[in-house]
Amino acid sequence: MAEVVKSLKLYSGRSNPELAQKIATELGVELGKITLTTFSNGEIYARYMESVRGSDVFIIQSVAGEVNNALMELLIMADAAKRASARTVTAVITHYGYSRQDKKSASREPITAKLVANMLTVAGVDRTIAIDLHQGQIQGFFDTPVNHLTALPVFGDYFTAKNLKNICVVSPDVGRAKAAKKLADILHADIAILHKTRPAHNKSEVANVIGDVAGKTCIINDDMIDTAGSIDGAVKALKKGKAKDIYICATHGLFSGPAYERIAKAKVKEVVVCDTVAVPADRLGGKIKVETVAPLLARAIKSVFYEASVSEFFDPDFQL
Amino acid sequence: MAEVVKSLKLYSGRSNPELAQKIATELGVELGKITLTTFSNGEIYARYMESVRGSDVFIIQSVAGEVNNALMELLIMADAAKRASARTVTAVITHYGYSRQDKKSASREPITAKLVANMLTVAGVDRTIAIDLHQGQIQGFFDTPVNHLTALPVFGDYFTAKNLKNICVVSPDVGRAKAAKKLADILHADIAILHKTRPAHNKSEVANVIGDVAGKTCIINDDMIDTAGSIDGAVKALKKGKAKDIYICATHGLFSGPAYERIAKAKVKEVVVCDTVAVPADRLGGKIKVETVAPLLARAIKSVFYEASVSEFFDPDFQL
Amino acid sequence: MAEVVKSLKLYSGRSNPELAQKIATELGVELGKITLTTFSNGEIYARYMESVRGSDVFIIQSVAGEVNNALMELLIMADAAKRASARTVTAVITHYGYSRQDKKSASREPITAKLVANMLTVAGVDRTIAIDLHQGQIQGFFDTPVNHLTALPVFGDYFTAKNLKNICVVSPDVGRAKAAKKLADILHADIAILHKTRPAHNKSEVANVIGDVAGKTCIINDDMIDTAGSIDGAVKALKKGKAKDIYICATHGLFSGPAYERIAKAKVKEVVVCDTVAVPADRLGGKIKVETVAPLLARAIKSVFYEASVSEFFDPDFQL
Amino acid sequence: MAEVVKSLKLYSGRSNPELAQKIATELGVELGKITLTTFSNGEIYARYMESVRGSDVFIIQSVAGEVNNALMELLIMADAAKRASARTVTAVITHYGYSRQDKKSASREPITAKLVANMLTVAGVDRTIAIDLHQGQIQGFFDTPVNHLTALPVFGDYFTAKNLKNICVVSPDVGRAKAAKKLADILHADIAILHKTRPAHNKSEVANVIGDVAGKTCIINDDMIDTAGSIDGAVKALKKGKAKDIYICATHGLFSGPAYERIAKAKVKEVVVCDTVAVPADRLGGKIKVETVAPLLARAIKSVFYEASVSEFFDPDFQL
Amino acid sequence: MAEVVKSLKLYSGRSNPELAQKIATELGVELGKITLTTFSNGEIYARYMESVRGSDVFIIQSVAGEVNNALMELLIMADAAKRASARTVTAVITHYGYSRQDKKSASREPITAKLVANMLTVAGVDRTIAIDLHQGQIQGFFDTPVNHLTALPVFGDYFTAKNLKNICVVSPDVGRAKAAKKLADILHADIAILHKTRPAHNKSEVANVIGDVAGKTCIINDDMIDTAGSIDGAVKALKKGKAKDIYICATHGLFSGPAYERIAKAKVKEVVVCDTVAVPADRLGGKIKVETVAPLLARAIKSVFYEASVSEFFDPDFQL
Amino acid sequence: MAEVVKSLKLYSGRSNPELAQKIATELGVELGKITLTTFSNGEIYARYMESVRGSDVFIIQSVAGEVNNALMELLIMADAAKRASARTVTAVITHYGYSRQDKKSASREPITAKLVANMLTVAGVDRTIAIDLHQGQIQGFFDTPVNHLTALPVFGDYFTAKNLKNICVVSPDVGRAKAAKKLADILHADIAILHKTRPAHNKSEVANVIGDVAGKTCIINDDMIDTAGSIDGAVKALKKGKAKDIYICATHGLFSGPAYERIAKAKVKEVVVCDTVAVPADRLGGKIKVETVAPLLARAIKSVFYEASVSEFFDPDFQL
Repeated sequence: MAEVVKSLKLYSGRSNPELAQKIATELGVELGKITLTTFSNGEIYARYMESVRGSDVFIIQSVAGEVNNALMELLIMADAAKRASARTVTAVITHYGYSRQDKKSASREPITAKLVANMLTVAGVDRTIAIDLHQGQIQGFFDTPVNHLTALPVFGDYFTAKNLKNICVVSPDVGRAKAAKKLADILHADIAILHKTRPAHNKSEVANVIGDVAGKTCIINDDMIDTAGSIDGAVKALKKGKAKDIYICATHGLFSGPAYERIAKAKVKEVVVCDTVAVPADRLGGKIKVETVAPLLARAIKSVFYEASVSEFFDPDFQL
Repeated sequence: MAEVVKSLKLYSGRSNPELAQKIATELGVELGKITLTTFSNGEIYARYMESVRGSDVFIIQSVAGEVNNALMELLIMADAAKRASARTVTAVITHYGYSRQDKKSASREPITAKLVANMLTVAGVDRTIAIDLHQGQIQGFFDTPVNHLTALPVFGDYFTAKNLKNICVVSPDVGRAKAAKKLADILHADIAILHKTRPAHNKSEVANVIGDVAGKTCIINDDMIDTAGSIDGAVKALKKGKAKDIYICATHGLFSGPAYERIAKAKVKEVVVCDTVAVPADRLGGKIKVETVAPLLARAIKSVFYEASVSEFFDPDFQL
Repeated sequence: MAEVVKSLKLYSGRSNPELAQKIATELGVELGKITLTTFSNGEIYARYMESVRGSDVFIIQSVAGEVNNALMELLIMADAAKRASARTVTAVITHYGYSRQDKKSASREPITAKLVANMLTVAGVDRTIAIDLHQGQIQGFFDTPVNHLTALPVFGDYFTAKNLKNICVVSPDVGRAKAAKKLADILHADIAILHKTRPAHNKSEVANVIGDVAGKTCIINDDMIDTAGSIDGAVKALKKGKAKDIYICATHGLFSGPAYERIAKAKVKEVVVCDTVAVPADRLGGKIKVETVAPLLARAIKSVFYEASVSEFFDPDFQL
Repeated sequence: MAEVVKSLKLYSGRSNPELAQKIATELGVELGKITLTTFSNGEIYARYMESVRGSDVFIIQSVAGEVNNALMELLIMADAAKRASARTVTAVITHYGYSRQDKKSASREPITAKLVANMLTVAGVDRTIAIDLHQGQIQGFFDTPVNHLTALPVFGDYFTAKNLKNICVVSPDVGRAKAAKKLADILHADIAILHKTRPAHNKSEVANVIGDVAGKTCIINDDMIDTAGSIDGAVKALKKGKAKDIYICATHGLFSGPAYERIAKAKVKEVVVCDTVAVPADRLGGKIKVETVAPLLARAIKSVFYEASVSEFFDPDFQL
Repeated sequence: MAEVVKSLKLYSGRSNPELAQKIATELGVELGKITLTTFSNGEIYARYMESVRGSDVFIIQSVAGEVNNALMELLIMADAAKRASARTVTAVITHYGYSRQDKKSASREPITAKLVANMLTVAGVDRTIAIDLHQGQIQGFFDTPVNHLTALPVFGDYFTAKNLKNICVVSPDVGRAKAAKKLADILHADIAILHKTRPAHNKSEVANVIGDVAGKTCIINDDMIDTAGSIDGAVKALKKGKAKDIYICATHGLFSGPAYERIAKAKVKEVVVCDTVAVPADRLGGKIKVETVAPLLARAIKSVFYEASVSEFFDPDFQL
Repeated sequence: MAEVVKSLKLYSGRSNPELAQKIATELGVELGKITLTTFSNGEIYARYMESVRGSDVFIIQSVAGEVNNALMELLIMADAAKRASARTVTAVITHYGYSRQDKKSASREPITAKLVANMLTVAGVDRTIAIDLHQGQIQGFFDTPVNHLTALPVFGDYFTAKNLKNICVVSPDVGRAKAAKKLADILHADIAILHKTRPAHNKSEVANVIGDVAGKTCIINDDMIDTAGSIDGAVKALKKGKAKDIYICATHGLFSGPAYERIAKAKVKEVVVCDTVAVPADRLGGKIKVETVAPLLARAIKSVFYEASVSEFFDPDFQL
């Protein structure tokens, strides 16, 4: 007879080690020892350098940057943990790449976000922790538990601390209006919505504001900033509507392609993102601010690990 | 050696036989013979009264009304077809009950729309045809093909034929703004969005219009009308915004609870729904109009059955 | 490092809350808090109002009455528990609806009892506790453990306490003869078997007794009473065989359709059922007696929860 | 573009090649070429000696005799066919070994009949054809189609041709009474049932007859004859009941252990079995008669292969 | 609330009970009580005679001898354990029959080693412990953890204790050269490789030595000795190369067909095998020596059972 | 009623379009139209630009170069084909990345080759065509058919055409000796094997030749050339053994890291690879020769598509 014990083991993939370290610090544990290598032929190799037998393994990875490499690394780490007899494997996916491919928008397309969910499952992932998925429905792509957190309270705290007056939270398009309303509720603010129309047949689309932004401090909220392609139009539309200052906040700062250039040029006071995707150090310092989600993730991990014995005050199933 | 042949067999569950008959007529086939019984203890029994061996079986069912009975009947029909060696089983789900339960909005909730998808799969459904799912992401709940159609062109035709002027398509809430925009594009119309705010701490929420509706003929578009609980507030808000006439259109007319009473009282010219959910004959004639999706579904079935040989002009994978 | 602990959480669906409460009382626990609602459109909604993370969740439901609603509620409760990270989910199915659809008796029929087993599995049920399944083979429809209990000892106690003399246990048809023999062994009684024959081509079937019932107190034993359609014929046949008093006992009292009327008219002293299916209070008091299976189920749950540490004297795998 | 064609390929395992040859003759095809070897270490090896790519492969095997070898051979043949890209693999299991292990009769037992079903499924079997399974519920152990045939008409023809008078079909125990009734209906005969009781605490069980057999020609019908252990008691009981002649018929003649000796001694006129299990030629000639099921199986195979195009008069889903 | 406890329960199939007993002794536990019977019709029956609920069940079986019977017994034991609610089921497969059928060497062959893996999985095996699989890739046939041990250190100890000089480890063919090199490294020895060539078109193949064996004590190492068919040629080739003494060692001594005769005649000093396959007592005493793997397996079982708490010095994942 | 027809549709991923074009030319078909894009955030997007409904889709991809991108692209293409109702999806994997990770060589490693197999399966791949997998056992990682081809005959033709005399095929290590023997048999050549030993404790390993290469034209054969790290040692060892000319041939030319430099410096006459992995045009012309496998793959595809109707002379299941 033996009591069943388990230990929490935290491992970091290579796409966002800073965040992983912060989470470990929050939890008061050390990151586990693992060898991760990319061979010169591009194949990734993983080996746990300590026993994970019977442990609850948490793998922290941001499926961003070289997105397919990051994804494959996560899968390989999960496979190795399962085969090394980990008790459970939890993927802490700080950014869920391919999350926008969550339905067929045209025929003969894949639904890659579902493919990713299936890949995680066959690799041996028992549970997933994610933040601000592009759509909450991605939870339903899994038959295993998903803890879906939101970073909106992080932005709530951030802007509350700034003590801004007369705020209007702006949704960058009609599809994101619901999240904008959530943040507006936190900040006791109004909301406005941007949507695009084509003024004439041979003209390009322009953004219009639905709602009144005149004289207001506008906070555009999105789930992610990718190429920042719509910032310029959004700013123009808001300025046309006589908006005062403009802030942008988004959970995931992918900043791909011309994003940094566009942001540099844009008439916005700040672009605030979370550290769910690693932002190169040399990109910080200007308009771009990064807030950490480490405490949020640490609490979720703790809650999952200690199961029923942890305080109910924190519910790691927040949902946008 | 034998050539593999297949035949199209169309069967109707008991929740919407009129639509099934119309589809059969469109396709120029007869509905297949099946015995469907509910025993006095509430159990449903199904038996195909003709061979389905090697056939492509299409089962038409609206998972609405007595929603659990309708769902179970569909599953039992699928199981019987599979065990009777049907070549394929396609569920033509004209209304996908539980589609609003597509994510966890609070912790410790189910994701019943995913559960339904899994149930269909274990019952032997190989492919699903659906119309205006609450969210397109539900496609990703399946690992099998889903043909997701939209009835927006049906409404486009309907309102175009009415020759209305100065139209504004209105989204009933921020979450549905994208579909409203699609219909507005078909009708070359403007859009507006309703959203609810709480004027003061101890007051109830009121609907506000984002966008300009003054003097316009408003068409509120939704995916379904359930209890019609928000109609009154929507009308008030639009009228306050000086809207002219108000029409409502929604693909699925569930009309549950006090829906008919509310619609009778509401200052709207028409409430147009499709026949994806059976509407009792005695409810028709007044404001409520029903347009049929039978041609749409018939084309989708034909396209699925004849596979590559059918014209590409109709693509049964429209997506909202 | 943490010890793995678990807690027993007992939840009741809405089809048989009285039995669930009795089981909770037997176990000395309170029923867990859960919200269960049926919306006006017929959809069911469930939410656990307390954490079930890491717990062993037992869901008590009788898949009877509105059988599809009861089944769907059970499935939704299981799905929610699994997604809320319950350690295990056990379905305590006090009556397994569709259990008679356990094979194809004619071609092109479903095997709905297997479909139900598959549905439970995809909903996240890890283990099933059931009583007097129509056939023990239903256990084999599951790849997960099934604890199959029998209520025959309950009837044994009941009739032993009555101190009847010269008993003959009667099987209502040839298919149930084995169970009748089991009860006869408990009561040290004889057995007889009813079977139907058609006396002439254009006559309806009549029941005949195989075996000698003259002067005996007959106890007809069945697994369930549904519409009570064969009682009249059975009584006539037994009376023709000069039986003395006639009792009927059956584990599951569905009493659907004209059952109560038929029982009222039938020349039987008592109809004894268990509380596996809720019987309306106003139906009790006359011939119909209800015995509880709460102690039986409570012991099975305890045995499952405490695993190896519980006394072996009670084996929750009784099998008819 | 190419038409999909398929060809019927029939292969025989090594446990009942005579029956396989008869089926091939009935179908007018030749048995396919396959190498089957048992290495001296006991491992079985199979290789198809011709292409099966795109074919409908039917594998005929009796899981009897060296039951585990026969089962493993069948599984290996299925695996090889699947990996060689057969279009479908149908297992024609003339005797389903382990069929009596279809439920847990005591705790901590396996349900081996379900295990066998799962093994067939993972080996690549798409469909199963079986005869007189010990219980029809075994069909529900599969999620794939099962064609369950019965040999009762074969016995019906056999005994009808004998022109016997005043027949009584006898069930060898209470559990088989339903099949006895079926055969009795075919033969327009009465039924009787044998059951065992223990006359006193320290005495061994004796068989009793329920029903009147005096002066009748008794035909005991069972699904299989294994060790023939109960024949002596049955005969004694029937003779005590003044039965005239006694015949025994059973679909599967396993004749294991002391079966032949017991049959030789038993006061029965004939023991009729089908050729679902190979009976050694030197065992025939006395009381033991063998009827063939080849036409029955050939029709089922034809019906499965030609799918919808074959006459409906033969329905390969007979069910006991 | 209850702590989750588990107990180690060790059961032996009937193919190698001596080894199972030795392992139990090493572990300081008693073998668990289980009934294992083969009926006269060849079917195997298993029943645990004590509760295994919540236990970690380890089943020790050598899939050798009557290989299909041994395999089926193992599967049935696993199924019974799973259905009796064992916490985990570990198959300790001391010899993995069919391991040489691990790929298609010709078209239309099965891959029986994968079939066996799938069968173990559907029977409920959660983890597998194996020794010297024919190829390490068989681990990848499982999606569950496999602990793959090697007996090479056992042979290392054995030959080290003999204090032989000038050793050359010989691979019996080019495919096994890697293992030979491993043993050579342990013994600080040279290696040589045997390979077969056909000297002329109409001559039979002869073995040739690659490498220098002149004057050396040769130890041929293989994973198994089956019919010992290549011993004679190997000895001739080595002798032609002027080898001094010749030893043979192999993990699994199947000794099937003419193996004993061949060994008796062969000019080798010793044939050393492990007790992974039971060797009849009357075969011991001459050239054939048997070393035990009981301590190796006992340590692996202990390590699996105690999970993270056991010393890391022994890693039960050795890999050839 | 409709005949089931199918059409062959060939699509190319972006890692080896030249080979795909050559295969299409061999087959006399055009490559299908598909949009493949990599977004600036690194995500891959695929859309078929024509119907694939009911077609047999073959996707040609070399999982090499940016190996994770190539793999993900293949998976996304498969998912899209499946969801677009392709009849079957065949992955023609000209190089199977991660194939060397086919077992655990150390504890707590993944088995990534199995993970890849599982990923292909969940993405909807029904069949796989591969060439010279690192180990044939990888076939057994799939439960679906795998056609495993070998390019050895291509090298056989190449070197036969060169009319070399006195050839010795050399295995680069003991593990590849079997393939070397196969090629030697084709070329009627001798074989030799290289293996590494450590001459003294603090010295690095050196390659030794087992077998006689003096005066011979050596052809080193491997499955792939990755970094070409062992060429130098191999050449030295062969030269020390007085080999004459040295050729190298390998199916897959990955040429990663310093491979080109090493090859340039190596004293070898030619390095012959197949076009299973795209080699940059500017790398050709010197020692590196590329032979095409397009005819081999085209025949395999034709054989799979036409199933039984194609000549048996070509068997697409060659196996090393």
